[in-house]
Amino acid sequence: MNYKLLLQYDGTDFHGWQVQANLRTVQGELTRVLSLLDNREVTVHGSGRTDAGVHAEGQVASVHLQRDITPGKLRSAINGNLEGDLRVLSVELVPEDFHARYSATGKTYVYRVMNGLVMSPFWRRYAIHETRALNFEKMSNIARLFLGEHDWTAFSAAQADAESRVRTVTELNITRREADCDLLEFTVSANGFLRYMVRSIIGTLLAVGRDEMDDGTVLRAINQGARSLAGATAPAHGLTLRRVQY
Amino acid sequence: MNYKLLLQYDGTDFHGWQVQANLRTVQGELTRVLSLLDNREVTVHGSGRTDAGVHAEGQVASVHLQRDITPGKLRSAINGNLEGDLRVLSVELVPEDFHARYSATGKTYVYRVMNGLVMSPFWRRYAIHETRALNFEKMSNIARLFLGEHDWTAFSAAQADAESRVRTVTELNITRREADCDLLEFTVSANGFLRYMVRSIIGTLLAVGRDEMDDGTVLRAINQGARSLAGATAPAHGLTLRRVQY
Repeated sequence: MNYKLLLQYDGTDFHGWQVQANLRTVQGELTRVLSLLDNREVTVHGSGRTDAGVHAEGQVASVHLQRDITPGKLRSAINGNLEGDLRVLSVELVPEDFHARYSATGKTYVYRVMNGLVMSPFWRRYAIHETRALNFEKMSNIARLFLGEHDWTAFSAAQADAESRVRTVTELNITRREADCDLLEFTVSANGFLRYMVRSIIGTLLAVGRDEMDDGTVLRAINQGARSLAGATAPAHGLTLRRVQY
Repeated sequence: MNYKLLLQYDGTDFHGWQVQANLRTVQGELTRVLSLLDNREVTVHGSGRTDAGVHAEGQVASVHLQRDITPGKLRSAINGNLEGDLRVLSVELVPEDFHARYSATGKTYVYRVMNGLVMSPFWRRYAIHETRALNFEKMSNIARLFLGEHDWTAFSAAQADAESRVRTVTELNITRREADCDLLEFTVSANGFLRYMVRSIIGTLLAVGRDEMDDGTVLRAINQGARSLAGATAPAHGLTLRRVQY
């Protein structure tokens, strides 16, 4: 039986997604619980790794189990063995060939920035704090340059071992929360992401917003692929994986 | 100089508002920092106590300082000496006779209930989890019975030492969050609250929602003041003080 799990986690107390010896990770927790339930060591596939400190409102994982258990019972059994910062929202039975990573067609991330004098106690785990003024109009205009198919070499980890660094960004919006007008949300969708790609795009946009970078430099970073032209990688804890498309 | 402080706190790691020896409290933290800044033991007045575990999006405190310091500098100086779960959002200079408690004319609380199978990791500190079905229509209808001026003896702590237990509830709305449709928010406003009053009203409404109590019982609790007729006091961590009116 092949199961698709929809997950939420607060990344604060995890060393990221990927299994690591002696460290608490999301994949590690799920592997432990599912192996226990299936009486054998199972392999849990995620739609992709999230780095240490990154959160998920809608991560997706898939796992083959020998045991035949209804989706509702599987969800309860898993949640009953996890701490409250990691939850399975729902479980679905899926065709044998469904794979959380290879079947994914796109992802959406949100990056949160508290742009005001004071960081709210309720957002400090999920947003970074930027006290300097950010030019909202300028960031929104330059955000459009990132749309479309590009080679994202300038905006990814040096060690990124992807065969191709070409991805298509389909959405890059910046909004203010109505209830919390100091909270900026950057929403980024693409057919796939390289490591550090969202955080590097956000770091660049924040440099633009602080008037430290102009659109010419951003265009050159995108077109020439020179990492030295891109902004700093924004901190992990502002980033949340919102959903995975299939 | 008399200063009015607008505060936010995540109540999870506080033993409530009121100073207690050897326990971390909100008033205790503010007293420590403000006494340090004013070189003497100062008295910090809050608009009212919040119990252990209760949060605040807009608590108000007032304090007289001998030192003459601009509101902006005072805010920075206080925040620089606090942990991230307690923040001063803003500081105002107010007339000598302003008092956070005695000058208050009303308060608004919000109580959050995650009414679904799974508790979101992002709401577990700020909402209670109710997996049983809640009848939204019935709760909303009965909520109207609480509006107006009543003696709230049935909905307050036995030890409540208030001279009068008459308060006027001006608002009691129940809404679903658009983005999180499983999250119910109960908003309650009154010209004042007795201890446990919001949590007791919410506990009663939840019993109504689970079909464990009818409107006749609620009316009798309100009119006869018998605590035995009211529902259980709902847990502290679902409660947030949203704002104080002056």
